[in-house]
Amino acid sequence: MMIIMIYSTSKKLFILITFVFMSACGADNSIGEQWRALNINNTVLLTLPHGKVVIELAPQFSPKHVEQFSALVKKSFYDDTKFYQVIDGFVAQAGPKEGSDKDKSVPVLAIEGQFAIDKNWSFTQVQKHDLFAGVTGFKDGFALASDNNDSAWLTHCPGTLAMARGKEAGSASSHFYFVIGQAPRYLDKIMTIFGRVVYGMEHIQAIKRTSVIEGEYAVDSREYTSITSIKLMVDVPLNERIVIEVENTESTDFSERLIKRRARESAFFYEKPPSVLDVCQVPIKSRIVKKSKI
Amino acid sequence: MMIIMIYSTSKKLFILITFVFMSACGADNSIGEQWRALNINNTVLLTLPHGKVVIELAPQFSPKHVEQFSALVKKSFYDDTKFYQVIDGFVAQAGPKEGSDKDKSVPVLAIEGQFAIDKNWSFTQVQKHDLFAGVTGFKDGFALASDNNDSAWLTHCPGTLAMARGKEAGSASSHFYFVIGQAPRYLDKIMTIFGRVVYGMEHIQAIKRTSVIEGEYAVDSREYTSITSIKLMVDVPLNERIVIEVENTESTDFSERLIKRRARESAFFYEKPPSVLDVCQVPIKSRIVKKSKI
Repeated sequence: MMIIMIYSTSKKLFILITFVFMSACGADNSIGEQWRALNINNTVLLTLPHGKVVIELAPQFSPKHVEQFSALVKKSFYDDTKFYQVIDGFVAQAGPKEGSDKDKSVPVLAIEGQFAIDKNWSFTQVQKHDLFAGVTGFKDGFALASDNNDSAWLTHCPGTLAMARGKEAGSASSHFYFVIGQAPRYLDKIMTIFGRVVYGMEHIQAIKRTSVIEGEYAVDSREYTSITSIKLMVDVPLNERIVIEVENTESTDFSERLIKRRARESAFFYEKPPSVLDVCQVPIKSRIVKKSKI
Repeated sequence: MMIIMIYSTSKKLFILITFVFMSACGADNSIGEQWRALNINNTVLLTLPHGKVVIELAPQFSPKHVEQFSALVKKSFYDDTKFYQVIDGFVAQAGPKEGSDKDKSVPVLAIEGQFAIDKNWSFTQVQKHDLFAGVTGFKDGFALASDNNDSAWLTHCPGTLAMARGKEAGSASSHFYFVIGQAPRYLDKIMTIFGRVVYGMEHIQAIKRTSVIEGEYAVDSREYTSITSIKLMVDVPLNERIVIEVENTESTDFSERLIKRRARESAFFYEKPPSVLDVCQVPIKSRIVKKSKI
């Protein structure tokens, strides 16, 4: 038996759909496929000196940021720039030398911290009333949250890619960061998230920290991690592409996994934890369809 | 002006103490010191091939686990063992080869997932009603939570050190893990947390992942990260010690920092986030008093 929960803003209620599958029939118990192929035009290959990272961009949520980031990537803007602000447990931030001609050459963007939703919009619900939002869930593999039926926003889970900015809302241009620690959800809505790591997060975690504690030797900027290159996957030679599929968060397989994750039925849980889920603590699976040996 | 919030189980209310300090007087605005020195008998130096990590143990919360772990450390039990289960965004787990004589030589421990509190017990409160507990806070630098006036437990924040176990509650012996991703709070109470990383978390994050995704080449066990050594700091030669102080979470400085962190008064927050704090997203500062150059 499988129960699918879909939150519908039009009906302002949760639709509970119950299916009974014959487990012996060998059929694929899916409504929608379990895996979703990434669009190579919205997928990025980040090459670091110590490993390769694949990122899915989110033009459906943050179109202007994806457009600008993609245009910069197309012209190799980030190649040889550095992760200059890397704080353990928080973020790894990269970009051109601040105040340089290169830095100032990029126009600022209006913030896209939230997006409008309407009565026809739906997503896969994870949790009502977490600490930061009325409801959380997933859409297209991205963790998100909402407080009403008018708007929603992507949440700052580990692996999130967002654009850095100055004090003003509309001051982001090219500097970006990855979340590398416990979700800083207080940044939700006031920063623009425009992608997420789908492969190689351990290499993001291995980026050299630039921030030191009191009493520690400062890190020489020559030790900062450099970006070897960032390319749109469509521009990567075929034999060097990493072809990734990600869990389809709109599938019944995924909804079933959420239910299991919440129920914790394994004997390991000799006492059941609270029947809740932190949207940032639900890993979305990826798999490799083809990986270059290079 | 400084407001201190102390949750008192005896009075079942929050005591709000307001102090007015003269910022011009140059005095140390502290009730209790801002920094706390670590006890070298309860501090561990973990040497990995790629860096050094300092851990504070928690005998006040998990005495039997600390006792057993310390005894194992004293006899160099973990030296040359490997991190054999390392899952990005989740945990890095180490221990002797499973089922080996060495593994079986260690007695199992009764779980210490919770500890009793009484009406005289106090802690520095962070948040009421987060997703997993009635109240969260800090005591002696450790993040914890409680649902009532009888018991509390340490929470699985990033950097937490806990003992692994089998299906049964009382099956932990020597295998341990560090949390390296979004807090898996569903493990609270049913695992024994007995320490936390106070220095070098980036080296824990750089431990070689052993878990791969579908379609990925398996990691050869020869690539697993080995433990060069684990020593109690008291047993480390003086000139090789890393002497750490940590924020005193019972100080007014710390309470003031919590208030500021919640209020987000910087102009950067052009829209204020919800006035809440995730106990696992409040970093406890460390500083180095003396570090060997070795």
